[in-house]
Amino acid sequence: MSVKTSISGFPELLPHERALENAVLSEVRSCFELFGFVDIETRAVEPVSALLSKGETSKEVYLLTRLQDPAVDMDSPKQLGLHFDLTVPFARYVFENAGYLQFPFRRTSIGKVWRGERPQNGRFREFVQADVDIVNRSENGEELPIFHDVDIVKTVDYTLRRLERFNIPGATIQINNRKLLDGAYTVFGIKDKIETMRTLDKMDKIGQTSVLNALLDSGEDELSAKKCLEFAKIVATTPEELLNNSLIKEVQVEDVAKGGLEELIHLLSAANAFHKMSADESDARVLANLRITRGLDYYTGSVFETFLDGFENFGSIASGGRYDNLVGCSIKGASSESPKFPGVGMSIGITRLMSIILDVNSAPKKTVPTLVLVAVNSEQVRTDSDFVVDYLRHKNISAISSPRAWKFGKQIEYAEKLGIEFVWFIDEHGNYSVKNITTKVQEEVDDSTFKDEVKLKKIFGKCVDDATLQVI
Amino acid sequence: MSVKTSISGFPELLPHERALENAVLSEVRSCFELFGFVDIETRAVEPVSALLSKGETSKEVYLLTRLQDPAVDMDSPKQLGLHFDLTVPFARYVFENAGYLQFPFRRTSIGKVWRGERPQNGRFREFVQADVDIVNRSENGEELPIFHDVDIVKTVDYTLRRLERFNIPGATIQINNRKLLDGAYTVFGIKDKIETMRTLDKMDKIGQTSVLNALLDSGEDELSAKKCLEFAKIVATTPEELLNNSLIKEVQVEDVAKGGLEELIHLLSAANAFHKMSADESDARVLANLRITRGLDYYTGSVFETFLDGFENFGSIASGGRYDNLVGCSIKGASSESPKFPGVGMSIGITRLMSIILDVNSAPKKTVPTLVLVAVNSEQVRTDSDFVVDYLRHKNISAISSPRAWKFGKQIEYAEKLGIEFVWFIDEHGNYSVKNITTKVQEEVDDSTFKDEVKLKKIFGKCVDDATLQVI
Repeated sequence: MSVKTSISGFPELLPHERALENAVLSEVRSCFELFGFVDIETRAVEPVSALLSKGETSKEVYLLTRLQDPAVDMDSPKQLGLHFDLTVPFARYVFENAGYLQFPFRRTSIGKVWRGERPQNGRFREFVQADVDIVNRSENGEELPIFHDVDIVKTVDYTLRRLERFNIPGATIQINNRKLLDGAYTVFGIKDKIETMRTLDKMDKIGQTSVLNALLDSGEDELSAKKCLEFAKIVATTPEELLNNSLIKEVQVEDVAKGGLEELIHLLSAANAFHKMSADESDARVLANLRITRGLDYYTGSVFETFLDGFENFGSIASGGRYDNLVGCSIKGASSESPKFPGVGMSIGITRLMSIILDVNSAPKKTVPTLVLVAVNSEQVRTDSDFVVDYLRHKNISAISSPRAWKFGKQIEYAEKLGIEFVWFIDEHGNYSVKNITTKVQEEVDDSTFKDEVKLKKIFGKCVDDATLQVI
Repeated sequence: MSVKTSISGFPELLPHERALENAVLSEVRSCFELFGFVDIETRAVEPVSALLSKGETSKEVYLLTRLQDPAVDMDSPKQLGLHFDLTVPFARYVFENAGYLQFPFRRTSIGKVWRGERPQNGRFREFVQADVDIVNRSENGEELPIFHDVDIVKTVDYTLRRLERFNIPGATIQINNRKLLDGAYTVFGIKDKIETMRTLDKMDKIGQTSVLNALLDSGEDELSAKKCLEFAKIVATTPEELLNNSLIKEVQVEDVAKGGLEELIHLLSAANAFHKMSADESDARVLANLRITRGLDYYTGSVFETFLDGFENFGSIASGGRYDNLVGCSIKGASSESPKFPGVGMSIGITRLMSIILDVNSAPKKTVPTLVLVAVNSEQVRTDSDFVVDYLRHKNISAISSPRAWKFGKQIEYAEKLGIEFVWFIDEHGNYSVKNITTKVQEEVDDSTFKDEVKLKKIFGKCVDDATLQVI
């Protein structure tokens, strides 16, 4: 299986692939409900001013114009663009609806986002993200304590574990903390911290030497740049490993770094304890990796990326972080006196994940939700078959009539092709019988069985309780 | 309740409203599965050339440009626009993927569409449609028989009936047939049939006199125009009413009109028979109304509109029709030698329906999927509460810990506000108890109950089997 695309970067799935995607989405939704997240949906568009106010995203935005008036006006507050993630619209939604929400507000949103960039392996122009975020309204100095970051990582860890039933490998969530980086860069004497983080974010793509050269080119001292690179190599699965590292010891004298380190350590140990509680394995699945910076400017504390074992080159399949000031800057009507809405969240890249899931699963036999095909003896008596179809549907049994009055062998073949489990026959005397396509057993349906819902449903066994597609 | 919108025409829902919308969508999806429709999702964009090739839609299209290169090029095959319905993309999808599909292909798609027009009452720029369509591949002269039109009307009739649990009134599906109109217009001596249909489509908006004047202005004879108007007033719930009408008698001498009339009569009686089979009422719910024309050019036979009793002014909440040649004209790579894909379908306007459903239902008490709030005694012992939360989640019981170690009264109040049914307490000796917020009953949870999943779930009664939101 592979994702088809007739416009580059805009993937579309075949019916059996979409059935698999729906099963994945349904699993993700039920995990998010288990962790107490409320579903909301934001519109597809935002004012461009809001989309461009944060981070290195300008190249990614699709603008909207109308056929009757196709001029783009970047200075107009009415100029709209398609959202490139679900976090920026969520922050705006929270600001606009704060009076109607209970804080801390735990929200999930699953939907499409668009990026106008050149598509490459694992990257798309239109794709689906599944987000969880927790946002607080910061009043009287109330913040959003670090245990919310832990809960976000737990949610994604648990969800990815449940998705392993779709034959994907285990996932490692790699975490870092922007405050730790910020403080460390102070200690190292870095001049442009934001630029340095952006450059380091490209390490996997361009390699260590190019990163070093880029840092030197942008005016950093060689010693500072080299320390940044060394720092970015630190990886740890336990607090002890972090605390014993000499560079960590060097930077934690700085207050901001110390605060960030404490958050990172708390998150690392709490999330790994949760994972071990449930995973029947002793491996740590949450890893401190000080190379993780995230490209977007709006993160202020924890940052997360997630890699599937063996698919590391494919890129992160779940990313996010802590954003303490996302609302304040970008939203119409917000001012320095507006309440702050600190938040933390992660986003699972469903489309990217699906391209792996489609590769490692064979096509399901069943491609329709239908349980029963009612055979048609001739077009003249199609209404007899329609009566049975309508009757079954009213008993909550998914049914269709055969599209043509083919020979019975061909009607059975048609059911088999679609993966429909049962074929219903009407003989010349109007008697009913049902054939199980898998077992080939055909049994009569007498009048008392037909009229008794419980008896009727017994014919279809377990299938009838689960009308939705079983894809795995 | 009312739909909020901070950009005109782009509605967004509050969490409890979205919960209601999700319940509606879930009901719609399970009805569509019952009728054997397969879910697919098409991308949000199409080449503008495909979007503009049919019907009076040019004013409605949003074009896409990229920030780095914002010029619109209407002559380029790469110029993209957002789809304004789900039918045009579906036709293109069928053409591209025909080799992988089983025909007749019964597909559902539920998704957003966009129209750049001025929003008015009941109209939006971004809205959700829920579509069902049946498409055949026409080879060796095989067409798509009229019983598929019947099945589409049955599907929507049944679905709208199931949606009555959301306190909406009954719906009347009004049907007509373009072939009947076409043949009648031949008999009446109409010169521009397409223009006449478009003008008649505006009857409800601009009134009879304006329609007559518009027909005269566009060059039709007075006698012809008046006959069209008379014809458009014909309404019938039975075949007999139609056949006894003198104008119908006049036009059925014409072959095309006769063919259309036969289809209309078959559809009318079959769909009403289905409705009466299930609806515990004798009222006809499918009505032949010869005023219905549908604005879009691509319909070639049956056309449908649907009105909720008492909300007729609100506009149609489910529309569609038969399209025998939709694929042929608009799609890249299609030629006169390509196979034809005749189809029939309807689209339920979910967003429009939601604005009614939100008006007639009060806000549900429960706004989160969470079943249990685990109280926190102090921030120092939060991990004790987190342990319980994590344990419950692993038993598939939706839980969160209290966001703050408030006094217990305030923690209970917080659960009540969110509609969380149970609060879990840990006393100073580490003993557990659970309080039911509704009954105020608090019961101890001893160690054996805690460790026995069956016993544990009994505490939460029926709630635990249905973790998803109950909104009605």
